[in-house]
Amino acid sequence: MIVLKIGGNVINNPATLHEALDYFASLIEPAVLVHGGGRRANQVLSAMGQEPVLIDGRRITDQATLEIVTMVYAGLLNKDIVAQLQSRGCNAIGLSGADGNAIQATKRPVDTIDYGFAGDVTAVNVALLDALLRLGMQPVLCPITHDLRGQLLNTNADTIATETAAALAGHGHSVRLQYCFELPGVLTQLDDPSTMIEELSESRYTSLREDGTIAGGMLPKLDNAFRALHAGAKDVRIGSLAELRRGGGTSCVAG
Amino acid sequence: MIVLKIGGNVINNPATLHEALDYFASLIEPAVLVHGGGRRANQVLSAMGQEPVLIDGRRITDQATLEIVTMVYAGLLNKDIVAQLQSRGCNAIGLSGADGNAIQATKRPVDTIDYGFAGDVTAVNVALLDALLRLGMQPVLCPITHDLRGQLLNTNADTIATETAAALAGHGHSVRLQYCFELPGVLTQLDDPSTMIEELSESRYTSLREDGTIAGGMLPKLDNAFRALHAGAKDVRIGSLAELRRGGGTSCVAG
Repeated sequence: MIVLKIGGNVINNPATLHEALDYFASLIEPAVLVHGGGRRANQVLSAMGQEPVLIDGRRITDQATLEIVTMVYAGLLNKDIVAQLQSRGCNAIGLSGADGNAIQATKRPVDTIDYGFAGDVTAVNVALLDALLRLGMQPVLCPITHDLRGQLLNTNADTIATETAAALAGHGHSVRLQYCFELPGVLTQLDDPSTMIEELSESRYTSLREDGTIAGGMLPKLDNAFRALHAGAKDVRIGSLAELRRGGGTSCVAG
Repeated sequence: MIVLKIGGNVINNPATLHEALDYFASLIEPAVLVHGGGRRANQVLSAMGQEPVLIDGRRITDQATLEIVTMVYAGLLNKDIVAQLQSRGCNAIGLSGADGNAIQATKRPVDTIDYGFAGDVTAVNVALLDALLRLGMQPVLCPITHDLRGQLLNTNADTIATETAAALAGHGHSVRLQYCFELPGVLTQLDDPSTMIEELSESRYTSLREDGTIAGGMLPKLDNAFRALHAGAKDVRIGSLAELRRGGGTSCVAG
């Protein structure tokens, strides 16, 4: 089983989105697609006179922002992706975490920062995903969750992919997790694709993190990747679509 | 089986929306909810600098409008409704027509008026609805369809409810169809609730239409109601939530 996560830079460019959907539709094994869309959300926020507020790459989600990300992730992007997959003969079904109680979350507690309506995943409904896959449908998850008390919550899409892969692995599935983004993989020099790390062990990650070689947005992504690995995912990769298609990109490995 | 359609005036008021969701969640039989949301879509259109364009109550859907109604119907409203139903113990699953190919449509041909990305329903996926109901889920349909070639389309919510009820009836289900709106039922004098018609036969409808007693937005609604009746729906009613709850409202009958 494959869990494929596509990021905002892949979605925002029609050409790369089409390639990613071609790839997903071509998969023979059961597959779950997870998408973000923060860049498009920022565009709509701006068009509606709201300013995106992010701290360390994490969005501060007030009520107006929650409504807009729900519109963009669960509406605009999710349905466009589903319709495009359907046109490729892939029987996609779009889900927010609220749909069929697919992904339950809890509002992030306020510590030093109040993230507002941000959700931390508490449960992934594997029985639902299994049932939909058995019916021949491919779930397409957007990063909106709910707390089962009527509140929608905004959740990081990498985290959705990670927790979904972890939950599927925990229920006996052999899971391959792929984070598709705009770079070929994890690079030691951001401007030089030839510095891509093919196999990244957790111990090497720790040292590259400590010496500052890996920094910024790669850190939460790699934390997610190793979390999925520990939870039992068989193969965890980060890379561009071209790399992932040929089994490349950066493979995260134990040790 | 019940197909319940709730209109924009019901959705736009939190109190009436909560009542409608209480009612839907309390249904013991398998049930499908269909919602509109045109008023909220108009608010978001205005906030984004677009002017809603409607001819005879039907929306002209250009590309920008399609994106906004997809955001509002499939995102904002559908997910809020699903989350609220989930909090009531109702295992709702929100669907656009693209999801699982639930409702297929064709772009309305241009005659004298070009409605843009408006969809006329061509097929309702009864096998999907049956499968979801068997899994204990209650489908919540928003009025966005697709053409199976990657194009999303905007479709009238009354029509979605009608075609869904007709398709379910055509597959052997005993279907009750309820259109919930802000009036107690079909009135012969709009300002006087005591003029509600309890049983409206098609012949009486025809004469009330010809003499102008019934006009405007009630006409497409009643055309839809009688279409569902002809297609085999057992009980077709139009009314307020209070009326529908007690088995009241206007009952459309053959003859």
